[in-house]
Amino acid sequence: MQDRHELDSMFYPKSVAIVGASPNPGGFGGTFFLTRIIDSGFSGAIYPVNSKAPEVQGFKAYPDMKSLPEPVDFVIIATPAGTVPQILEDCITAGVKNVHIFTSGFGETGEEEGRRLEEKITEIIRRGGLQVVGPNCMGIYVPASKLTGWGVKPEGTGSIAFVSQSGGHGEFLTGYAQGLGINFSKIISYGNASGLQAVDFLEYLADDPDTSIITMYLEGIEDGSRFTQLVRTINRIKPVLIWKGGLTESGSRAVVAHTGSLAGEGRAWDAFFAQTGAIRVFSLEDILDVAMAFYLTPPRGRRVLLLGGGGGNSVAAADICDREGLEVPRLSEKTQKELNAFIRLAGNSVRNPLDVWEVMENIDSLRSCMELAVADPVIDVVIVDRHVGNIYDDSPTEKQLQQEINDFIIEFAQKNTFNKTLVMSTNLFGNTPEVAASAVMVRKEFATAGVPAYSSQVNAARALSRLIKYHEFQAANQDSA
Amino acid sequence: MQDRHELDSMFYPKSVAIVGASPNPGGFGGTFFLTRIIDSGFSGAIYPVNSKAPEVQGFKAYPDMKSLPEPVDFVIIATPAGTVPQILEDCITAGVKNVHIFTSGFGETGEEEGRRLEEKITEIIRRGGLQVVGPNCMGIYVPASKLTGWGVKPEGTGSIAFVSQSGGHGEFLTGYAQGLGINFSKIISYGNASGLQAVDFLEYLADDPDTSIITMYLEGIEDGSRFTQLVRTINRIKPVLIWKGGLTESGSRAVVAHTGSLAGEGRAWDAFFAQTGAIRVFSLEDILDVAMAFYLTPPRGRRVLLLGGGGGNSVAAADICDREGLEVPRLSEKTQKELNAFIRLAGNSVRNPLDVWEVMENIDSLRSCMELAVADPVIDVVIVDRHVGNIYDDSPTEKQLQQEINDFIIEFAQKNTFNKTLVMSTNLFGNTPEVAASAVMVRKEFATAGVPAYSSQVNAARALSRLIKYHEFQAANQDSA
Repeated sequence: MQDRHELDSMFYPKSVAIVGASPNPGGFGGTFFLTRIIDSGFSGAIYPVNSKAPEVQGFKAYPDMKSLPEPVDFVIIATPAGTVPQILEDCITAGVKNVHIFTSGFGETGEEEGRRLEEKITEIIRRGGLQVVGPNCMGIYVPASKLTGWGVKPEGTGSIAFVSQSGGHGEFLTGYAQGLGINFSKIISYGNASGLQAVDFLEYLADDPDTSIITMYLEGIEDGSRFTQLVRTINRIKPVLIWKGGLTESGSRAVVAHTGSLAGEGRAWDAFFAQTGAIRVFSLEDILDVAMAFYLTPPRGRRVLLLGGGGGNSVAAADICDREGLEVPRLSEKTQKELNAFIRLAGNSVRNPLDVWEVMENIDSLRSCMELAVADPVIDVVIVDRHVGNIYDDSPTEKQLQQEINDFIIEFAQKNTFNKTLVMSTNLFGNTPEVAASAVMVRKEFATAGVPAYSSQVNAARALSRLIKYHEFQAANQDSA
Repeated sequence: MQDRHELDSMFYPKSVAIVGASPNPGGFGGTFFLTRIIDSGFSGAIYPVNSKAPEVQGFKAYPDMKSLPEPVDFVIIATPAGTVPQILEDCITAGVKNVHIFTSGFGETGEEEGRRLEEKITEIIRRGGLQVVGPNCMGIYVPASKLTGWGVKPEGTGSIAFVSQSGGHGEFLTGYAQGLGINFSKIISYGNASGLQAVDFLEYLADDPDTSIITMYLEGIEDGSRFTQLVRTINRIKPVLIWKGGLTESGSRAVVAHTGSLAGEGRAWDAFFAQTGAIRVFSLEDILDVAMAFYLTPPRGRRVLLLGGGGGNSVAAADICDREGLEVPRLSEKTQKELNAFIRLAGNSVRNPLDVWEVMENIDSLRSCMELAVADPVIDVVIVDRHVGNIYDDSPTEKQLQQEINDFIIEFAQKNTFNKTLVMSTNLFGNTPEVAASAVMVRKEFATAGVPAYSSQVNAARALSRLIKYHEFQAANQDSA
């Protein structure tokens, strides 16, 4: 297996060749990757490889891998499956080490021919000591080295890595995260995994100084015990979040059709999560929701203050937290008394949930309310519910007030005088295009300020619950390495 | 208890008095209701009642209920709790029957004074034979009679009724539904339920010709056995969807603080749902998601065709359906063969889920694909996954194509040549304000055309699963009335 430095030449290449890039724009193959890599601002040498065209998009093209003027650091293969074995042989001859095979049409087709081809390339990869991502995948996305053959142009670099057997998931997550101002260190889509495996990427990322949280979407795993051992070790230092696809009967059939992997058994994966303490997630949104929570210093416990407005809404929030294993303790008598000095009894409740509609419309009251309630020793964690789109009043004055309230909450969270863990959840008042657009902007505002921002109370509670569980696991397993 | 006709005078009043309306605009009391009722276009007589002002917002005001020139059909009380008993006495004297008490500050405060006041008004209501909604609630919302003291202005009338112990939920749901072009027959927010109970509204709605689906948010129920009997009977004719708040420990404490109700036990409610076949929902979005599914003719079974693009996305969809108790059968060999005549093996899968990215970009292929796959006898239900916001191409040409594809799918669903059940789910490619706004518009387009449109695959699967379960329950219990 490769050590970390060997994979560095793949993640930070000085030259790239794209086999199958053609002069005709459009299409979803080599030309697509070439365009994206140019767009992303890659500053190294770019070599299109095309058996017919002498020039591709302004770059001199080469008829095959053997004709390149140097052994390039990274090769993307995007030609039909039948041509891949010979290209890999050429890579070996040319002294190339790192290859991404975008091409599909291998084991995942379920056809005899595809399976045979996959066996063949696996043999070549082993024999040549190639470091191969794929086949049947979108490859690597490394904002720092401006190597992003992805649909979504990176807006920056971040500290989250995503290792995904699905390229679509990689692209979706990138787009989804950027909407919240969150960026990645590296994303790796590795499809059928004929060459490098999840464990290889994990080992690399464990020591990667740019990565502090590792997230994964897995369909199948080759070496279960090595993987388990590795995750258990890494998870102590960098949280490992895993979405395991295909654990149902229908899902496991879909996995076979997608990457030809064996999805494995639900019980084995239950045991894996129990043993390793890795954080189990169930969707892309979930990955991001939980990853965001790791911005925060560890919560001291699971007792939540729910701050918002609306009686039904408060009941819903309390039910949600309870179902996620969080507690919603009654505030101390002292705090309640102090709150009721300026919050009317009628129409409000200061017991917790704080159903304090009027307070949410007045910064001074809100400040007093938060200072008193958040300081209460029965509270560890705070969820502030932000309504987006006022149905009573959409005047500029009201919008200005809401903006000021958001600014105040962010400032309060950043100062964190009381050393509690604070997150926000949006709650859409209305479902118009304008409200939906505002909600994205409000969330981004909080998230980029380091305050985890959720699309719903359910998501906020779920994320917090897993953050707390992670730290509880680490505390309980500190000495049992 | 009131028969249906007696409540008609409340839901379709010819005159309204608002006690506590004042000349000062703003605030959240009688003036708010007056403004909203004027805005909603109520054409009957409007009488502000105010002990000090002779005129309120252009209407002649009256010092008290006894001074009104006629026994009005409907009174809204929005003055402090202490004044409510006397106003109710005046209503009786004035020959008024229907009252909405907006005022809060009763049993829900947890204070002795509030509890005593609530006992007092309960006694007056009984003695006077008043039909009272509330106290501590937003009252009624009836688009057909232009009586909507709500923050959200109605955009039309619909066939869904919502009976809710929370006014906030009523307003949120109205706003949320209107974003999808869905409207209501009646919404009733009834708070502490000192007068009319959930069962009274249920009985009324059972015979209401404008209502075909009844949805409820409940915190507590007074007469459990009568309620159970009623729901069981009504649910046969009109689907009854119930969100029960406060079934967790934290939630039940929040219920006490909200409407002073007793939330009841989880197990008793489990038994209630098992006995009645009422549909259990868990949020406002859930209510609307399931209600939308009842647009459709009953599915013949639970075998789903998943149509979309992306391998990881297909695995996720299959897992989701399986977890919701739906089946994702492999398409018949014949259908697969016919599909592979024009869909390449590499990069696609036609087994089901249909991972057919290219087909989703070409109307002719999509038509052929849908005609073949939907016709397959192994399929009962279809979920079409629509990506919103193309990360590769946001050109006008691409947008035009996506619009045409949406139009085609809607037409396909409306014709319903194959007599299958079709819904769509959005899947956001990106998370920008623009994409979020588009997603709302795309959903509205489908939903207003009668094609249930969901914000995620999870929500689509959950809604379908409950639609199917409802019909299965009815089929199994047909003769056991």
